[in-house]
Amino acid sequence: MSLKQRYLDNLPLEEAQARYRAHLLSVGFGPKAETIPVRSACGRVLTRAVYAAICAPHYNASAMDGVAVKAKATFGASEQTPLTLQPEDYTVVDTGDPLPEGADAVIMVEDLIDKGDGVYEILSSVRPWQNVRQVGEDLCMGDMIAPSGTTLTPALCGALLAGGVTQVEVRKVPVVGIIPTGDEIVAPTSDPQPGDIIEFNSTVFCGMLESWGAKAVVYPIVKDKRDAIRAMLRQAVSDCDLVLVSAGSSAGRDDYTCEIIRSEGTVTVHGIAIKPGKPAVLGEVDGKAVVGLPGYPVSAIVVMEEIVRGLVALAGGKAEKAPQTLDCVLSKKIVSSLKYKEFVRVTIGKIGSRWSASPLPRGAGVISSFTKADGMLVIDQNCEGIEAGETVPVRLLRSKDELEHTLVVTGSHDPLIDEVTDLLRQNGEPFRVSSTHVGSSGAISAVKAGLAHLGGIHLLDTATGEYNKSYLKQHFPDGGAVLVPGVGRVQGLMVKKGNPCGIRSFADVARVRYVNRQRGAGTRVLCDYLLQQNGLSPQQIEGYDNVEFTHTAVAALIAAGNADAGLGIYAAAKIYDLDFIPICTETYEFLVREESLHDPMVEAFFRVLRSEACRKRLLEMGGYQLTKENTYADTSE
Amino acid sequence: MSLKQRYLDNLPLEEAQARYRAHLLSVGFGPKAETIPVRSACGRVLTRAVYAAICAPHYNASAMDGVAVKAKATFGASEQTPLTLQPEDYTVVDTGDPLPEGADAVIMVEDLIDKGDGVYEILSSVRPWQNVRQVGEDLCMGDMIAPSGTTLTPALCGALLAGGVTQVEVRKVPVVGIIPTGDEIVAPTSDPQPGDIIEFNSTVFCGMLESWGAKAVVYPIVKDKRDAIRAMLRQAVSDCDLVLVSAGSSAGRDDYTCEIIRSEGTVTVHGIAIKPGKPAVLGEVDGKAVVGLPGYPVSAIVVMEEIVRGLVALAGGKAEKAPQTLDCVLSKKIVSSLKYKEFVRVTIGKIGSRWSASPLPRGAGVISSFTKADGMLVIDQNCEGIEAGETVPVRLLRSKDELEHTLVVTGSHDPLIDEVTDLLRQNGEPFRVSSTHVGSSGAISAVKAGLAHLGGIHLLDTATGEYNKSYLKQHFPDGGAVLVPGVGRVQGLMVKKGNPCGIRSFADVARVRYVNRQRGAGTRVLCDYLLQQNGLSPQQIEGYDNVEFTHTAVAALIAAGNADAGLGIYAAAKIYDLDFIPICTETYEFLVREESLHDPMVEAFFRVLRSEACRKRLLEMGGYQLTKENTYADTSE
Repeated sequence: MSLKQRYLDNLPLEEAQARYRAHLLSVGFGPKAETIPVRSACGRVLTRAVYAAICAPHYNASAMDGVAVKAKATFGASEQTPLTLQPEDYTVVDTGDPLPEGADAVIMVEDLIDKGDGVYEILSSVRPWQNVRQVGEDLCMGDMIAPSGTTLTPALCGALLAGGVTQVEVRKVPVVGIIPTGDEIVAPTSDPQPGDIIEFNSTVFCGMLESWGAKAVVYPIVKDKRDAIRAMLRQAVSDCDLVLVSAGSSAGRDDYTCEIIRSEGTVTVHGIAIKPGKPAVLGEVDGKAVVGLPGYPVSAIVVMEEIVRGLVALAGGKAEKAPQTLDCVLSKKIVSSLKYKEFVRVTIGKIGSRWSASPLPRGAGVISSFTKADGMLVIDQNCEGIEAGETVPVRLLRSKDELEHTLVVTGSHDPLIDEVTDLLRQNGEPFRVSSTHVGSSGAISAVKAGLAHLGGIHLLDTATGEYNKSYLKQHFPDGGAVLVPGVGRVQGLMVKKGNPCGIRSFADVARVRYVNRQRGAGTRVLCDYLLQQNGLSPQQIEGYDNVEFTHTAVAALIAAGNADAGLGIYAAAKIYDLDFIPICTETYEFLVREESLHDPMVEAFFRVLRSEACRKRLLEMGGYQLTKENTYADTSE
Repeated sequence: MSLKQRYLDNLPLEEAQARYRAHLLSVGFGPKAETIPVRSACGRVLTRAVYAAICAPHYNASAMDGVAVKAKATFGASEQTPLTLQPEDYTVVDTGDPLPEGADAVIMVEDLIDKGDGVYEILSSVRPWQNVRQVGEDLCMGDMIAPSGTTLTPALCGALLAGGVTQVEVRKVPVVGIIPTGDEIVAPTSDPQPGDIIEFNSTVFCGMLESWGAKAVVYPIVKDKRDAIRAMLRQAVSDCDLVLVSAGSSAGRDDYTCEIIRSEGTVTVHGIAIKPGKPAVLGEVDGKAVVGLPGYPVSAIVVMEEIVRGLVALAGGKAEKAPQTLDCVLSKKIVSSLKYKEFVRVTIGKIGSRWSASPLPRGAGVISSFTKADGMLVIDQNCEGIEAGETVPVRLLRSKDELEHTLVVTGSHDPLIDEVTDLLRQNGEPFRVSSTHVGSSGAISAVKAGLAHLGGIHLLDTATGEYNKSYLKQHFPDGGAVLVPGVGRVQGLMVKKGNPCGIRSFADVARVRYVNRQRGAGTRVLCDYLLQQNGLSPQQIEGYDNVEFTHTAVAALIAAGNADAGLGIYAAAKIYDLDFIPICTETYEFLVREESLHDPMVEAFFRVLRSEACRKRLLEMGGYQLTKENTYADTSE
């Protein structure tokens, strides 16, 4: 490959969509029809009007259990002048039975007086066609049962069958093939080798495609070999309406997707001015759409939403629905490049009557940012960013109803919040919990700004040695928020099993590689306090600027050997089988706005926090001191 | 069976539901769990919290294409003091590659100056862990990925796989078995024999069950034989969580459902105070719910909605959603019995800003009433009825959005309305058409009352021989509505092929069995006019009171031999291969309120009515005279 080919286009999204659509329409890409049995057609869309082939009922049917008669023969019957029916005057019929030749009415069994020997007496006459479901009562042959474009409901399928229609022409469900590529890609496993990349993108794509009404077919993983990819692409193009080639869509050493699509067909666009998602390939082979997707999951998801969703709609003959949006107040300034239209995942919270949106990490590799995301903020290419406090429309990834029933918890990371969440769900509480880790200082700002119901904090006042209280006074001088007791928990230094660096006290971190917590975290405040106590300056600590956002992230880096020591809670050390040098016991409390205290969600949260089930879980995790206020016993190790 | 057993309970619905639920809970009926691969778990609900089994990434991965180095070794590099990297100082890495032992940073390929022989120069240093995705950047081992009760989204499935989780415990999808029973029941066909009842209920049930998140299994049709039904029920109870026995749920000669369920388990309720749907059996066998459903489709659908939907929710561990309702003005008085809670299908129309609901036929056998229904009006047992003009909450069977985009056409029956509807859908117009047959007089009332956008009318002024105009003047003396040209169409007498009764003119109907149209129909006005012209009185006409609502229904009865003659349009006679004796050509026009004239839906309707495509269809149907206003050519036969 020449150096020139290594550069991608940077086409504005709308132009890329329009060019691609125009090309696909020019080669006949679009909805197809198929004929299927009505019995399996529920939910499908008719491509042409359907008319009743027969009447329903298709014969004159008795509507009652009784006897079929000629109505005229009963005229004149009354209480004064009863009429006698001889066996030759009637035929016994059950509901649904066809009327015999000559009969045109049914007398209900309740109206027959049994005289024995098959002789009945009646005290009133019947009208012609009384108690009879005449031919066509429900549907008449030739009547249109449903026009083109109708989505078949269960009742409509019933009506079609009743009308003698057993097959219908419906829009074909678009079949989308997914080809995962890459030398490092392995099938899902819980025991990958270093360098193995677990292939989960195809599972994500399948779920998205199925929710859009397409059928997904996943092909076997293909190595980064031109011929292998080409052969699989050929196969998929012949099987499917649309083909997604996963990864290899950029312009690196092993990125063959674009080259192969071009050699087999046409590439309309290579590179879109979106972030994440730039290195996408929009191509066509044999009239089928072929899209090269970036390998990073978040990038791929954005391309799926912005490009592939529209293709599925086009292939399925459906109008693309505009995404639902909600106006939210942005909690934090976002800077955006003029080079791209940017897609930022956000959490959404409703505190009181105000909707707010808070940006999540923007890394393209971070699939977990999508699992926490409640919405997507789209920043136009010609916009340099959005200020905190601005009201912006956010595309919803969850229903508004679900978001209205969400308890927003933020602040210092502690796994106990997840455990309480799980117990709330197990109890069937009708709300979800959205939890983010912004540190103890972040919790104070968020509760102050009305961005969260609760904030977990553990902030040491280095002047008094007391936790939290002075911060409350400082930030809420006029009241308005209270501290609700949480737990005591043991903080300490986490080091590799066996303590290979021989760390004895905090002073020893000066001679090893440290991993720190982010600015604003309570654990960072503790670190700075301990440095000061030990007469150390940040510059003396290697790794002081290597920051993580959670206790488990710090533990993971020590376990991986990226660092030798870090502060964290016992529960994190235990998960990673690290040695733990206790340093202090801190008071982890919840900051709550006064007006939220009696919110049923907040009440349920604290009820569960103080439950026996929660106590059991915390004991199992270890390192928690259950405070007196919680009637918890001391369990420090 | 004794006579006593022929009577059913008449338990109020809420009591039947409560008793049945209590019984089922007492025998352990409820949600179950199963463990399935994450790859096929999208949309499923977690029964327990899931934690990351590994970190993601699970190794330190290069975030760029470039060379991996020890960061410290690059310190000091600058434009003034370039640094040289010898081949032993670095390792070439692609994005995603693991960092080799000892390396802790990556220099991007763009920042390398190639000096040949594998020697590179750099003009800036890299920080430790720069351009590296450290272990756990996305997910940390031990972190809770999702709590109990979470519905798995595509992104969550991706996160689970990224976290090394390949299997999850989820709520089992309830499996519902359907046993169709009945001697007369046959599989769907377009050529049934007299007495054959096409089995379409199971298709309706499958569609409903699947829309509620259950899996449906349809067993083969079983004859009305105790042992055969019992054996099939045993099989279904062992395979499924819930079993529906279709038909035989009442107390007639061949109704075995209740008796068999009772002999195999428990019957909690037999007979619910609802209409339609009374003869339902609520039972239990071996801890599985077994419901006997009425054979009439509309009754069965009501029992499905009111009873089975709740059971599926209970078995699936889901909260039952309250149905969406919309307040509508009732267009017509409804009388209801104090013996039942009644479920009335209605059409819903929005004309201007006013929502109205109009009752559909209430027959339990009329599946087509469900296909036309937009909503369900529920009338409490203690309510004797609802007056026209009252505002009532109606349960929606279509989305409010779809109903907002609905053109409401009513009035005299003519198949051309269905054809125009179909053409509108084929053109991709973004609205649907709701069309009901209430006769020409009904059209005037409906347009007057603001219940419809358009009304099709063909009303002869017997004094002038002119159509429609005098009626417009009479009903809209101050204006407010206009007549829009429709078509001319030939009315005539339909008689059996070959005219076996030798009918020559309308006077001949006095000596045969006639089938009439309903009061208010334009064709009824014509009939009465012709009777008068011929000096005949209604009493002289056999079948004058045998009325139908459409031209095809009249044709169907003549074809079936239920009547010998009836008035109707040529198109209907043609479908049923009847002989046709032309009587007159009438002016079929559309009555439109002035303010609706420029409604885009109304405009589209008339645009399509005057299109070449519509003209072609009308020519094919036959018997239409395309009026001058329509620039249609004369095509009378």
